[in-house]
Amino acid sequence: MPTHAAAPAHDATRLLAIDWGTTSARAYALDAQGRILSQRNEPLGIQRVKDGDFAGCLATLGAGTVDTVPILACGMIGSRQGWVEAAYRDCPAGLREIAAGITPVPGARMSIVPGLIHSDRGGVPDVMRGEETQILGTVDSEAFQIVVLPGTHSKWAAVEGGAIREFTTYMTGELFAVLREHSILGRMMDEPGTHEDDAAFERGAAWSLRDGAALTHDLFSARTLPLTRALAPTAIGDYLSGLLLGAEIAAARHWMNQRAPRGAAVTLVGDAALCARYLAALRVAGIQASLGPEHASATGLWRLANHAGLLKS
Amino acid sequence: MPTHAAAPAHDATRLLAIDWGTTSARAYALDAQGRILSQRNEPLGIQRVKDGDFAGCLATLGAGTVDTVPILACGMIGSRQGWVEAAYRDCPAGLREIAAGITPVPGARMSIVPGLIHSDRGGVPDVMRGEETQILGTVDSEAFQIVVLPGTHSKWAAVEGGAIREFTTYMTGELFAVLREHSILGRMMDEPGTHEDDAAFERGAAWSLRDGAALTHDLFSARTLPLTRALAPTAIGDYLSGLLLGAEIAAARHWMNQRAPRGAAVTLVGDAALCARYLAALRVAGIQASLGPEHASATGLWRLANHAGLLKS
Repeated sequence: MPTHAAAPAHDATRLLAIDWGTTSARAYALDAQGRILSQRNEPLGIQRVKDGDFAGCLATLGAGTVDTVPILACGMIGSRQGWVEAAYRDCPAGLREIAAGITPVPGARMSIVPGLIHSDRGGVPDVMRGEETQILGTVDSEAFQIVVLPGTHSKWAAVEGGAIREFTTYMTGELFAVLREHSILGRMMDEPGTHEDDAAFERGAAWSLRDGAALTHDLFSARTLPLTRALAPTAIGDYLSGLLLGAEIAAARHWMNQRAPRGAAVTLVGDAALCARYLAALRVAGIQASLGPEHASATGLWRLANHAGLLKS
Repeated sequence: MPTHAAAPAHDATRLLAIDWGTTSARAYALDAQGRILSQRNEPLGIQRVKDGDFAGCLATLGAGTVDTVPILACGMIGSRQGWVEAAYRDCPAGLREIAAGITPVPGARMSIVPGLIHSDRGGVPDVMRGEETQILGTVDSEAFQIVVLPGTHSKWAAVEGGAIREFTTYMTGELFAVLREHSILGRMMDEPGTHEDDAAFERGAAWSLRDGAALTHDLFSARTLPLTRALAPTAIGDYLSGLLLGAEIAAARHWMNQRAPRGAAVTLVGDAALCARYLAALRVAGIQASLGPEHASATGLWRLANHAGLLKS
């Protein structure tokens, strides 16, 4: 399936499903069985929409289908900074609860999936937008499972009976980006951004997964190890990435062990290269995981549209 | 004592003592008792020295004294990126061990204090440059004590018998800077950089000091609390600062409790405003601390020069 192919006004299209995020948007033309007929990826995330011209961006994303089929979007397009705010829904939330919060965009054939909000045991809220749809597109059983969505703000969700019961966020991707681009650790890197030194990555992950790890201290080892020639400058980026993923997994393992029954499945959903690194770090932590479907948001949007009766229109 | 007064070619000057860091340099004219006759602070840190003209910067810092009195400098001036590398010394290290590593600068009357290196129990090295001198200028007893030096890379040192036995670094200040200036948390702040909301600061510190805290997760609360109007946009900076100081103190408390006898003194050395915030966060953690001397590096440099026999020349 070519990523940049125009989404055609295909006769079989029954839903235009859009995962519309902060920096980019991906539109899928789906048939009556939810199969992907075509897809289109554009740098039209909500931060890049000029003068509030969401309708113009939608026309680009839909390429001729926007007046003929229903459209359902998820992600930051439903945030306060998006087109129309789709208010957060509480957990637990499955297809029914999330579909009930779908919010129409006045003057367009498009509706927007709400995000989720959940307060942890200390009363501090956590939020997601877009990941709830990916989770709904991933889960095919009623059994308890953990779905992990790596990214700028990684999410771990506890799912049971088809409903998202709780979730927790880690700012791993954003921390990596700001440390690589703006800190002394990045200035020491020979080739920032490359990720090829698996041993350095696993070394970092293992270091953060040890008892007594403390990230604000351990980050400094990405400076002192190269300084003492105990880590190659070309390996700093992978080591730092390992430290950060390890810190996420150490905290999330604790979170998971308080919730998940022994042997609960762990499923990774997201960018393939990033998921491969999470798989490697999870192995270091002794956690078995498998990969979820590639286009989970398309499937989730189709299931939600179906549940909400949008496909009949 | 005016900060920007020129250091004069004062007859009583017996040592020009320079704390020469990455971004700035502070020079002190000291008399035979180590008292400060004058001081001068210039933005001539090693990152800002043009074309390797350290001698020219020294002439500016010394203002006429550089050919008449001995000069001792500490800090990043002795790093690989500085004027002359003063190789790291191992811990434990007191006046004698550190003075033994003082390294002359060829062609100048100046010598440079070495930094310290120490490997933690997992074999990962930690380093300091400049703080060893501040510690030597702070400690006046043989008793066990903890000296805390807040900053870009905060240091906690265990000192006994006048020697630095072990130390540990936290990248707290740098994390705060990159998150405030480059992350989504900074973009949400109404007035980044202000530090006036003590309640928000202490709330953040307490949250990071709770059992089960995990920084990469907890940082996200600096986004979700304002999003749900549970924290004012003007308070995000203080809350974030509290989260980061709390995370440092949580980890350092664990480190300290493994080393320090009950009731060991904790002394804070550094910028007055920053030390005040550390005092507040330490109070949240139930740790009593007191403030060290204001010009610890000047005193430390004088003690080292005296011990090394530099004052006789």
